[in-house]
Amino acid sequence: MKDTKKLFQHGTLALLVPGLFDGTLPLSSLLEHGDTGIGTATGLDGEMIILDGVPYLVRSDGSVNVLDANKVKVPFANSHFDNPEIEFDVTDATPDQLKDMIFFKYNLKNVFFAVKVKGKFDYIKTRAVEGQKKPYPTLTEVADKQAIFEENDGQGTIVGYFSPELFHGMASAGFHLHYLNDAHNLGGHLLDYKIKEAKVYLQVFESVETHFPVENEDFMKEEFDIDGLRASISSAEK
Amino acid sequence: MKDTKKLFQHGTLALLVPGLFDGTLPLSSLLEHGDTGIGTATGLDGEMIILDGVPYLVRSDGSVNVLDANKVKVPFANSHFDNPEIEFDVTDATPDQLKDMIFFKYNLKNVFFAVKVKGKFDYIKTRAVEGQKKPYPTLTEVADKQAIFEENDGQGTIVGYFSPELFHGMASAGFHLHYLNDAHNLGGHLLDYKIKEAKVYLQVFESVETHFPVENEDFMKEEFDIDGLRASISSAEK
Repeated sequence: MKDTKKLFQHGTLALLVPGLFDGTLPLSSLLEHGDTGIGTATGLDGEMIILDGVPYLVRSDGSVNVLDANKVKVPFANSHFDNPEIEFDVTDATPDQLKDMIFFKYNLKNVFFAVKVKGKFDYIKTRAVEGQKKPYPTLTEVADKQAIFEENDGQGTIVGYFSPELFHGMASAGFHLHYLNDAHNLGGHLLDYKIKEAKVYLQVFESVETHFPVENEDFMKEEFDIDGLRASISSAEK
Repeated sequence: MKDTKKLFQHGTLALLVPGLFDGTLPLSSLLEHGDTGIGTATGLDGEMIILDGVPYLVRSDGSVNVLDANKVKVPFANSHFDNPEIEFDVTDATPDQLKDMIFFKYNLKNVFFAVKVKGKFDYIKTRAVEGQKKPYPTLTEVADKQAIFEENDGQGTIVGYFSPELFHGMASAGFHLHYLNDAHNLGGHLLDYKIKEAKVYLQVFESVETHFPVENEDFMKEEFDIDGLRASISSAEK
């Protein structure tokens, strides 16, 4: 039975901060928990977006490929079954204007919810981090080596999540969004955008399931610096 | 199917801090997610412990009663299906010595796990907070009005959880334990103890599911002070 009221998360953003980039969950398992989502692959090799059950990976060379769910493992990713209960049209809006629209109308700051924006964009700016080999650097070091992509007059889909401030560290508090254009040749972690004409879909979750890589010895042994990592996430995921 | 690898949590400790004490989940629903657990009732009226599917409430007058799962609602509670995979005997140990034993042997500081200690205790010290009526005070104010109970040469069961530091706020980082003696006439939130001779059971969870009271307007509208509440939880739950 598909539970459309639950957000599934494998790993924590915290574990990426010191460089725990090994894939610890088969992508096929992630897809059992949802047909929509975002994440990354082993080595932090690119930005993943899952649309209609299909997992795409945008790499730092700009390539966009469909991943083989039986071969790829993920260190950190989210998925849910798409079933938005809130829908509205937006024209000519910046990220801040969209946020204001959402929180002016709905009291959602204390819960997790999914965001999907489908339509035309005046401007899209994304990034994809460069895949790393062991010994892995830290998240901050990787974030400094990212490729930037821009598109004007694009058409595509934004997918991602809002996480409440209380969960900063487990996730990145606020919005964490990825993008893929309809031509499937540009996407990544969303840095900036301007909506021309799009439909916005919100899906509020009753619960969030955080799944830990309990079989991964590096994770189990890591000495996390909680305060430091919260600051690192804020800087790397902005 | 009983998922023994998952810890279920309704609400967050964070929401208790400003005084969101309304029960928001039927106890019967909590029991669908486990036969073992801890929590509190509407108005923060006592300390709940669930053993073998039976929910007991220890109130500030010292009474211990079995709750009617169809009538009671909980603002904050945890449950899981008891199936410990680690078991060891302990004699003559303080809380700090037990903690040292656990973490010396097992790398569990980054994951949620259940703790059950069954046996004889030289000393037990518990507390139960006093039930509150609306308008509710804050958690700190309630914690100041608590009844203390002590028992020498007791026999009973400790049940509770370890939560990783990253989740302080959602839960209380570290150990959060409740107690009920075998005579069912003394129990509560565990403040101190000395093990005489007991069996310790640990159950490591692969995931934690945090369930939010999304139908509760007070929760949805609350403006949480995240840094302040982490400090308040540390002080109230010590």
